[in-house]
Amino acid sequence: MKLFYSPGACSVGIHVILEEIGKPYELGLVALKEGAQHKPEYVAINPKSKVPALLRDDGSLLTEFPVIAMWLAKTNPEARLVPTDLEGETRCAEMLDYVCGTIHPQGFTRQFRTANFTPREEDFPKVVEQGKALAAKYFDVLQSTWKGDTWVLPSGYSVADAALFFVEYWATRRSGMTLPPRLATHLEAMLARPAVQRALAQEGLPA
Amino acid sequence: MKLFYSPGACSVGIHVILEEIGKPYELGLVALKEGAQHKPEYVAINPKSKVPALLRDDGSLLTEFPVIAMWLAKTNPEARLVPTDLEGETRCAEMLDYVCGTIHPQGFTRQFRTANFTPREEDFPKVVEQGKALAAKYFDVLQSTWKGDTWVLPSGYSVADAALFFVEYWATRRSGMTLPPRLATHLEAMLARPAVQRALAQEGLPA
Ligand SMILES: N[C@@H](CCC(=O)N[C@@H](CS)C(=O)NCC(=O)O)C(=O)O
Ligand SMILES: N[C@@H](CCC(=O)N[C@@H](CS)C(=O)NCC(=O)O)C(=O)O
Repeated sequence: MKLFYSPGACSVGIHVILEEIGKPYELGLVALKEGAQHKPEYVAINPKSKVPALLRDDGSLLTEFPVIAMWLAKTNPEARLVPTDLEGETRCAEMLDYVCGTIHPQGFTRQFRTANFTPREEDFPKVVEQGKALAAKYFDVLQSTWKGDTWVLPSGYSVADAALFFVEYWATRRSGMTLPPRLATHLEAMLARPAVQRALAQEGLPA
Repeated sequence: MKLFYSPGACSVGIHVILEEIGKPYELGLVALKEGAQHKPEYVAINPKSKVPALLRDDGSLLTEFPVIAMWLAKTNPEARLVPTDLEGETRCAEMLDYVCGTIHPQGFTRQFRTANFTPREEDFPKVVEQGKALAAKYFDVLQSTWKGDTWVLPSGYSVADAALFFVEYWATRRSGMTLPPRLATHLEAMLARPAVQRALAQEGLPA
């Protein structure tokens, strides 16, 4: 199995999941800053030109963070990374999609890839501020609807935590944002996990 | 069961799924054009201020298109709207996420809610063009990686088709785009389904 990733990109969440599972895997570097996602070699592997992507042992490729996360959790049931009942799985998927379909693209892509939002450099600060305001709003929604204890789901640690982790990490390490209490506690708990520490270290990122 | 929707919004895909299932349900109008998603009555129901949202019979709310679609498919197995094997379910989820996490927010939100992307009205045409170019690129990825026959999955019709439908419908009815052949055939096949015709008619949309 091989994870295509870029250091510090959202793929770090899948990297954490692979470390939680603890089975051997390879890492394939796709340096987003150098535009490697658009080079023919990578487009031939993943026509979507994105990370994360997971090359499975049968040679097939899986894309989309929520899908890779859920597939890894289900094919490694001993790691207990997704509830086994439909309701628990559904709530787990709901968090994966909120992070990957809203918080990431609407809140953080605005801040990190501002040129994709406005053609005019003088408007960049406004767009970055808007991204921060949206991310703060999304985090407030999570704070006020939090159902778990330390972890996102009442049933305990799951792949949903690994997804929430990457946007919390971006918010505090790259955006200078302050997280609401539930999420601040969640981030601390994530950073204390050996799997998270290993993934960050392997990507050369500060803990 | 009650679906919160707005006419012609992405919620039409869930509306189609409910019509395919054929059990009784209610519709709750959230007029996005009038900002009803931000009014206290709806925020109390769905703090995310989005449609679709599904109020279930136990009084709990489900959000996120891919999650609602998958939950409806799994709790109504007789409608055969999702493959029962893990690999089929995974590929179904992959399409749901590509449509709802990329094609919709990156391609079409740029075109329909341009003011969310740039603060400057004179830049609107550029941003709309960028949205169309991205949507066209995403559609090309689907055309070149298409694995099914008429429907998205080789195993036949599924909730993934209802998701792809709403962006195809937007592309042709609202954006004046031309779809690549596989997708054009797919849209025609969708429009021929009685469930799709009923959902469109109920929302006052042209077939
Ligand atoms: N819908 C995808 C989005 C992944 C995504 O946006 N990845 C970013 C890195 S955080 C990326 O590859 N960006 C490269 C680019 O947009 O050129 C998913 O959930 O996996
Ligand atoms: N991630 C959500 C996004 C849903 C979404 O963006 N819905 C749009 C309608 S197509 C909406 O409610 N927009 C209202 C707004 O943004 O104010 C999902 O997949 O359900």
